[in-house]
Amino acid sequence: MSNRLSEFQQYRTRMNDRIAQMDHLGIKRFFNLDTVAYKDGALSAKEKELLGLVASMVLRCNDCIDYHILQCMDAGWSDAELNEAFNVALIVGGSIVIPHLRHAVETVDLVHQMKAEGAG
Amino acid sequence: MSNRLSEFQQYRTRMNDRIAQMDHLGIKRFFNLDTVAYKDGALSAKEKELLGLVASMVLRCNDCIDYHILQCMDAGWSDAELNEAFNVALIVGGSIVIPHLRHAVETVDLVHQMKAEGAG
Amino acid sequence: MSNRLSEFQQYRTRMNDRIAQMDHLGIKRFFNLDTVAYKDGALSAKEKELLGLVASMVLRCNDCIDYHILQCMDAGWSDAELNEAFNVALIVGGSIVIPHLRHAVETVDLVHQMKAEGAG
Amino acid sequence: MSNRLSEFQQYRTRMNDRIAQMDHLGIKRFFNLDTVAYKDGALSAKEKELLGLVASMVLRCNDCIDYHILQCMDAGWSDAELNEAFNVALIVGGSIVIPHLRHAVETVDLVHQMKAEGAG
Amino acid sequence: MSNRLSEFQQYRTRMNDRIAQMDHLGIKRFFNLDTVAYKDGALSAKEKELLGLVASMVLRCNDCIDYHILQCMDAGWSDAELNEAFNVALIVGGSIVIPHLRHAVETVDLVHQMKAEGAG
Amino acid sequence: MSNRLSEFQQYRTRMNDRIAQMDHLGIKRFFNLDTVAYKDGALSAKEKELLGLVASMVLRCNDCIDYHILQCMDAGWSDAELNEAFNVALIVGGSIVIPHLRHAVETVDLVHQMKAEGAG
Repeated sequence: MSNRLSEFQQYRTRMNDRIAQMDHLGIKRFFNLDTVAYKDGALSAKEKELLGLVASMVLRCNDCIDYHILQCMDAGWSDAELNEAFNVALIVGGSIVIPHLRHAVETVDLVHQMKAEGAG
Repeated sequence: MSNRLSEFQQYRTRMNDRIAQMDHLGIKRFFNLDTVAYKDGALSAKEKELLGLVASMVLRCNDCIDYHILQCMDAGWSDAELNEAFNVALIVGGSIVIPHLRHAVETVDLVHQMKAEGAG
Repeated sequence: MSNRLSEFQQYRTRMNDRIAQMDHLGIKRFFNLDTVAYKDGALSAKEKELLGLVASMVLRCNDCIDYHILQCMDAGWSDAELNEAFNVALIVGGSIVIPHLRHAVETVDLVHQMKAEGAG
Repeated sequence: MSNRLSEFQQYRTRMNDRIAQMDHLGIKRFFNLDTVAYKDGALSAKEKELLGLVASMVLRCNDCIDYHILQCMDAGWSDAELNEAFNVALIVGGSIVIPHLRHAVETVDLVHQMKAEGAG
Repeated sequence: MSNRLSEFQQYRTRMNDRIAQMDHLGIKRFFNLDTVAYKDGALSAKEKELLGLVASMVLRCNDCIDYHILQCMDAGWSDAELNEAFNVALIVGGSIVIPHLRHAVETVDLVHQMKAEGAG
Repeated sequence: MSNRLSEFQQYRTRMNDRIAQMDHLGIKRFFNLDTVAYKDGALSAKEKELLGLVASMVLRCNDCIDYHILQCMDAGWSDAELNEAFNVALIVGGSIVIPHLRHAVETVDLVHQMKAEGAG
């Protein structure tokens, strides 16, 4: 089923392909470095994704929030644990984060719905 | 020995006391909520402090970085783990974070130095 | 009549209910503290809403702008007064605020239109 | 043909007219100052538009990005040169800029498409 | 007596003079527009200064906070009213505002001290 | 002669060395990518430094401003051209940029003074 989250995933894939096609060495290396930053190391990939999520929330970027929620849920963070991360982001970033908290909570619900429908 | 970190800690304590003395109910409750947000829950206090640190770095607040580094090191995060968190913050926030990375790395060194001197 | 403002109000109510249902004590207390911050005190509720509006504009959050415009107009601020607040936000925040000024001015017009239609 | 870029241009024109109609002296003078800032001077208009574009990207404002891309392409910056500016913005601003890079790259493609259709 | 606030005022005056001396028409007109934005109009100068203060706090600019606190206290806002404005800024901007709240509260105290010494 | 700019340069060098010594692959690669982003390419190194300067001003990072002013002046931008870039940053970023404009103008003066003293 199509929803804003699956549409974002398709748009993200399509435009990332388009950007790769531009073949700018610096941009390609940045994308690579961004991917590597979330791999297992002294911190686990799972821990790093949660850091990425909170950073995205306090910087108020919905697309980044959606991406990291998908990664966090794949990595095994529970809803209760995500809510705790949301709370830290809310306290650090203040009420200006609330619209992004609404977005994040809706995204978590969409992921559960997509998984229940076998499309996650 | 006095350094910028010990001076910050004294200033922070003095001004937080001054703010408490103002006795504004909303501000007092916010400070309390801020403290509670980093207590053990679905996520551990240790995990939450690292989230607070990364949030502080991408929002580029040196005082907040210093506070959370002190908390993170008390909670048991190693230098190697902190470096990984710094790297996530750097990738998310970009080169504008570099001056705060310099500050953070210096703070970690100061904490080690203060602990070696028995003042930590 | 349905428009982006009425849709926002419905979405906001629905997701705030969903967040309340998550029953996270910290998040619930933050929402409560946020509500209380705009009640009459040493400053009037009316004055505080205008502060919230300007803060929302310089931080460039359209949902927050819409919420505070609705509150400000309910509290009795005139269009001329709102324009003055918009001007302060524009000067403080610069041309990057202009897209949010366009949004804010459209929202004021939508509120008047909804009130004229008896739906405000 | 209608697309998000032509719709933005129409919305922008309509709302800027509405704002002018409000006749607030400070706001009108700010808009005028904003226009003048990008005129030929010690730096050329062409150079200034590229500065405006990079500023818009690191501040993460899609509408501002679209406006400056249109101006930059009119001023004669090539796609290769724009990509270099995108790369500087990406390095300075970090991965949080990526959603806006996707938007910017799509906008460049839309401008080319509109020009090919004789509607640019 | 010299303190960080009087030093800031001297530095601000000296550098604003230096900037005026550069004689850049756009910059001079911006400074003029900035001054005019806080004059009596549909909103009073007093009300506008409080808006400027809250905007400065959520944008986390200590120099701007100091300037607007001086203006607000000259305009007649009481400490209790300033505290209420601080609280709105804290709720909107979150714990990342706390270092600036400490700065702001210290500035209010310095202004009172300077006035008591006849130097305000 | 020692001043805040020469002290910044020494601190920057010392801490960048310390960071390199940490030997974190991701951080090292980011620093390398950051350096490469300002090399001659489709845009000249000179043009890119000016983009970096304006990005630093609207993001309000004094250390970044100082670094890019040094690079820009080395690359041959004149004071009149820098003032134009400052003006674009001021218009885009608003009065919240003014403290950083004061800092930037002082830095330009310090660079001239250091060059006159043969220390630049």
